[in-house]
Amino acid sequence: MSSTFGKLFCITTFGESHGTAVGCVIDGCPAGLFLSRDDFAADMARRRPGHGAFASARREDDEVEILSGVFDGKTLGTPIALMVRNTGHNSADYDDLRHVYRPGHADFTYMAKYGLRDHRGGGRASGRETAARVLAGVVAKKILEKMEVAVTAQVTAIGGITITGDFMQNAQVVALLEDCKQNGDSIGSQVVCSIVGLKSGIGAPVAHKLSADLAAAMHSIGGVKGVEFGAGFAAADMHGTQHNDPFVALGGIITKSTNNAGGILGGISDGDEIIMRIAFKPPPSIAAAQSTVDTDGKPAQITIKGRHDPVIAPRACVVVEAMAAITLVDHIMLDNAGRILS
Amino acid sequence: MSSTFGKLFCITTFGESHGTAVGCVIDGCPAGLFLSRDDFAADMARRRPGHGAFASARREDDEVEILSGVFDGKTLGTPIALMVRNTGHNSADYDDLRHVYRPGHADFTYMAKYGLRDHRGGGRASGRETAARVLAGVVAKKILEKMEVAVTAQVTAIGGITITGDFMQNAQVVALLEDCKQNGDSIGSQVVCSIVGLKSGIGAPVAHKLSADLAAAMHSIGGVKGVEFGAGFAAADMHGTQHNDPFVALGGIITKSTNNAGGILGGISDGDEIIMRIAFKPPPSIAAAQSTVDTDGKPAQITIKGRHDPVIAPRACVVVEAMAAITLVDHIMLDNAGRILS
Amino acid sequence: MSSTFGKLFCITTFGESHGTAVGCVIDGCPAGLFLSRDDFAADMARRRPGHGAFASARREDDEVEILSGVFDGKTLGTPIALMVRNTGHNSADYDDLRHVYRPGHADFTYMAKYGLRDHRGGGRASGRETAARVLAGVVAKKILEKMEVAVTAQVTAIGGITITGDFMQNAQVVALLEDCKQNGDSIGSQVVCSIVGLKSGIGAPVAHKLSADLAAAMHSIGGVKGVEFGAGFAAADMHGTQHNDPFVALGGIITKSTNNAGGILGGISDGDEIIMRIAFKPPPSIAAAQSTVDTDGKPAQITIKGRHDPVIAPRACVVVEAMAAITLVDHIMLDNAGRILS
Amino acid sequence: MSSTFGKLFCITTFGESHGTAVGCVIDGCPAGLFLSRDDFAADMARRRPGHGAFASARREDDEVEILSGVFDGKTLGTPIALMVRNTGHNSADYDDLRHVYRPGHADFTYMAKYGLRDHRGGGRASGRETAARVLAGVVAKKILEKMEVAVTAQVTAIGGITITGDFMQNAQVVALLEDCKQNGDSIGSQVVCSIVGLKSGIGAPVAHKLSADLAAAMHSIGGVKGVEFGAGFAAADMHGTQHNDPFVALGGIITKSTNNAGGILGGISDGDEIIMRIAFKPPPSIAAAQSTVDTDGKPAQITIKGRHDPVIAPRACVVVEAMAAITLVDHIMLDNAGRILS
Repeated sequence: MSSTFGKLFCITTFGESHGTAVGCVIDGCPAGLFLSRDDFAADMARRRPGHGAFASARREDDEVEILSGVFDGKTLGTPIALMVRNTGHNSADYDDLRHVYRPGHADFTYMAKYGLRDHRGGGRASGRETAARVLAGVVAKKILEKMEVAVTAQVTAIGGITITGDFMQNAQVVALLEDCKQNGDSIGSQVVCSIVGLKSGIGAPVAHKLSADLAAAMHSIGGVKGVEFGAGFAAADMHGTQHNDPFVALGGIITKSTNNAGGILGGISDGDEIIMRIAFKPPPSIAAAQSTVDTDGKPAQITIKGRHDPVIAPRACVVVEAMAAITLVDHIMLDNAGRILS
Repeated sequence: MSSTFGKLFCITTFGESHGTAVGCVIDGCPAGLFLSRDDFAADMARRRPGHGAFASARREDDEVEILSGVFDGKTLGTPIALMVRNTGHNSADYDDLRHVYRPGHADFTYMAKYGLRDHRGGGRASGRETAARVLAGVVAKKILEKMEVAVTAQVTAIGGITITGDFMQNAQVVALLEDCKQNGDSIGSQVVCSIVGLKSGIGAPVAHKLSADLAAAMHSIGGVKGVEFGAGFAAADMHGTQHNDPFVALGGIITKSTNNAGGILGGISDGDEIIMRIAFKPPPSIAAAQSTVDTDGKPAQITIKGRHDPVIAPRACVVVEAMAAITLVDHIMLDNAGRILS
Repeated sequence: MSSTFGKLFCITTFGESHGTAVGCVIDGCPAGLFLSRDDFAADMARRRPGHGAFASARREDDEVEILSGVFDGKTLGTPIALMVRNTGHNSADYDDLRHVYRPGHADFTYMAKYGLRDHRGGGRASGRETAARVLAGVVAKKILEKMEVAVTAQVTAIGGITITGDFMQNAQVVALLEDCKQNGDSIGSQVVCSIVGLKSGIGAPVAHKLSADLAAAMHSIGGVKGVEFGAGFAAADMHGTQHNDPFVALGGIITKSTNNAGGILGGISDGDEIIMRIAFKPPPSIAAAQSTVDTDGKPAQITIKGRHDPVIAPRACVVVEAMAAITLVDHIMLDNAGRILS
Repeated sequence: MSSTFGKLFCITTFGESHGTAVGCVIDGCPAGLFLSRDDFAADMARRRPGHGAFASARREDDEVEILSGVFDGKTLGTPIALMVRNTGHNSADYDDLRHVYRPGHADFTYMAKYGLRDHRGGGRASGRETAARVLAGVVAKKILEKMEVAVTAQVTAIGGITITGDFMQNAQVVALLEDCKQNGDSIGSQVVCSIVGLKSGIGAPVAHKLSADLAAAMHSIGGVKGVEFGAGFAAADMHGTQHNDPFVALGGIITKSTNNAGGILGGISDGDEIIMRIAFKPPPSIAAAQSTVDTDGKPAQITIKGRHDPVIAPRACVVVEAMAAITLVDHIMLDNAGRILS
């Protein structure tokens, strides 16, 4: 089940970067949810390359097809298969890469695992695969919306520069990205994901802590190098008197006066905002010349053709939201089931 | 399955801090592995409180009982049930806490989820539960040993002070901990986990990346606030030319000249050392007076009795190793099965 | 997960026939259910050997110990570990069987799978393992009771003789069993399991049909050779006009005027009584001399010592009920979770 | 996961009878298997309606599309998505059925579970869904072929008439089916599935006995009312001396001189032929007038339009083979992983 997320709200994605199509099967979506092709447009646009000065040139039309699970505009409770055909990719760009391992990519490890690979783009490791997750995320977010839970992810840093608002309005960031473009280089970035409106009591102790499952969901996104909650790594430097969040009651609701916990205690939501910070490495596809080896282990020099994103975070926000939403819906369902007697 | 780790090498833990016993069932251990009670002694000693000047005073005898799955000193391939009875705990220490929520603890969230709780200690959220994981970790490490894979975790920082070697030899750290003791306070810490000897090709793309499953395993440990691999959060500030690890061939083996990846590319091991950094919050059980609310939401002041660890990392290392080992064995099995035809 | 039943109401059993203990971990029982050791007495007595003229002589005290998951007489929502120590078995009876494969037993197949085995009794294949299932079944039945769902299994045939009521009142059956005892032989049997009170809409289409999961649960019991629902194998001889159950409305409730379906349509409960028939082979442990081979493949003659049950059904009824109840609770939970939006 | 079969060789099917497409995702197929569209032709032809005098008239072109997981004619080890568009169905035939529950169908239970349904055909309960299973079965059988394991299913009885060879050569059967056609009726049937070449030691004790998983796979097929192994229900009438299969050694291989076990002992293969008998009810879609209720519970009479199969077994054989093969591959993989140390 290396391509399935979740236990009750199960998302199975399929598709290689340069294969026929990418898509997903959502097994476990409740019946009666309104769903149409139009619902996918906004989020698919957010992850689409080719818009913005610094984005990858691949044109993806992303014509979403609902293959099953929807009738008369409503979900049936049965598996929803969603598909987007792959178009606009130029496989010839990858001919030179058939016998060489790109640094920072999964070419070598896929070969080590499978003994063969689709050398045209990253296969399953490609950012293209995330289109399937975004599709599933749209459905998950529609479910959360009905529960008034909002999941939002934002770029908070690029190359060490802190960002508030639109990163394209930040002159320092624009200059940095322009620099990357000139030098055939790329740059790392950070995203913060916020979950608001989740009631307390969602999650599980021990093996499926909400924090553990959210962290796994984030680390499943390509390029993620670190994930932290609330005070995060800074907590390692703090005292207990400083880190412990005092409980207070506001208008009859028990909450906390600070939120170093990041909204999760003992793996279970405490009703507060869940705050998660995610670190992305710089994209490994760079135009600058690189040393590597070929598939026989002989030294080689490569220059990666085509135009590639110089930074991951801007396009990854919608993927972060999708994965967080998918994880939440799965946990809410598990929790709902556990309360069968009450 | 909120208490089960793994898909093929399945570990289910059970037991509350102040209940009858804690233990685990290991379902999926191969037959023919030598296993006896003596195997557990060293690691159980490493996580045991009550030794060292700054450790919790709870005396745990940790008499391990093998209930099933072993015959004539060898594993049978059937479920191995392991159990340690709870002794030496003083439940009376917790009488005052029956109707109050301790800051930084899971009292409130367990109540929100279950509607009732065992107020004597943290129940499943207690560090006591990790004894069960350490038992399973011993078995996992024995399997890895046969494959010449070594998993080791070390304390690398306490309260912002970098540590090399034994933290008790570091005067600055000892002073800091002494300070905590005097002030009824606690302090955060960091651990680094290293995995050496794992061949390339272990892991999975997309949903069960080795990094994702290891991160989930780490975040399942109480007090963990952040996990990062290789360059980690620092990668967010790096350029691609700097972060990409060039492939090189050494003695016929393809490896990398640097290891910002931390031994995992695209969710699959690259044969290099896997490096994982884990941030622990300061233990929430502190002697200093704290503001909180009672179960009716009324303001309350509490002072936590008993002697508690002022720092998590030293005793957590063996738990980190256990969880890493359990995750690795599960992935190695999955990978082995996937190669059925080769 | 070869010893775990269920997805949400997960039962993991452990223990060999002649090991230290047998038991189970129930992960997913809702919080707040009253549970004490006394709850297990009645069902454990029903499966206990040694009572009745024709039962196995092994004395099992079956002192049930609740190791975790219960506090102040109520379930905590956390894993419930239950254990019964193995006593009263005479391992010496099995010394002769160390190097020989008993016909009809799993000695040979366990050896083929694991390469070693516990030769003292059937190990995991022993009827002793079902004690663990009965423990879990008691908890499942308590949950069903609150929903007014009743699960009952009865012996309906022994050696081709149809039975109504207590089989020990049937002179023909008593004579048959007496005969078996004289001749060192055993006899096959049948059980019918009835589930009353389950509302319509429980189950799933395609992969986890309620019928499929119930059938798997039944076939997981030692000695089961066939399972059928409603009209069962007789349906293969019927016409559609005869087999189709007409829908009717009785007092505003839609039901069926006949029940060839056996209470399940398309894998989902229809609100009617669920009827399941289970065929048991004659117990393979017989006193009569048998031809077989030893572990080296050389011809051997064996005579199985000790007193063994001449028929499975009487003691299996409580196991059938346990497995049916466990399966139902799991499905009810899944269904409950699927209705999250309604 | 109500539409996912298997743990390591995972098959998720999707698609309603009258929706856009049916298909499946195969997650866990090893890399390097040759696979092309042509591989599916033979088995898809076997399950296709519209050929033969007594088959359903729906014309299915069954143009198979491989959406992912195959490159250069070989599997990549990544998810294989397969799809067949739905064509040739006449949804108008079902207009009369929008507000009525067909006897013997899942219309009522789907409504009870989901609160809404696709009334055009059986939705997920339709025989059409089995096309997706046949696609996955083709891949499973290719894997088994490499291991020289053969799975074959045959019609052995229709309406109580025993069949050897092609049922269309049997005058009695042809007359019976002609009769059904005249009377707008249908008839029950039986299939025997044989697995030859599976080595001993495949399967698991307790929860995932090979017999239990095979039985579940069979009961997941629409219309199945009973499944038995080896002597099956007849074992309930037999003595132990008669039913126990003596072990013998033939040419150094340990086998059995009879096969009442049906090739499985204690849930694990014994190396002998696995024999499974499956009972199918008569198809519920009959032209004869039937009493039922409408969705408001009011009495109604219905006559089902269109031409439908009068018997299930002939077209179901390939589905039986597919489900058996999928289950076997999953178990072989699990077993392979369990032997990691040997």
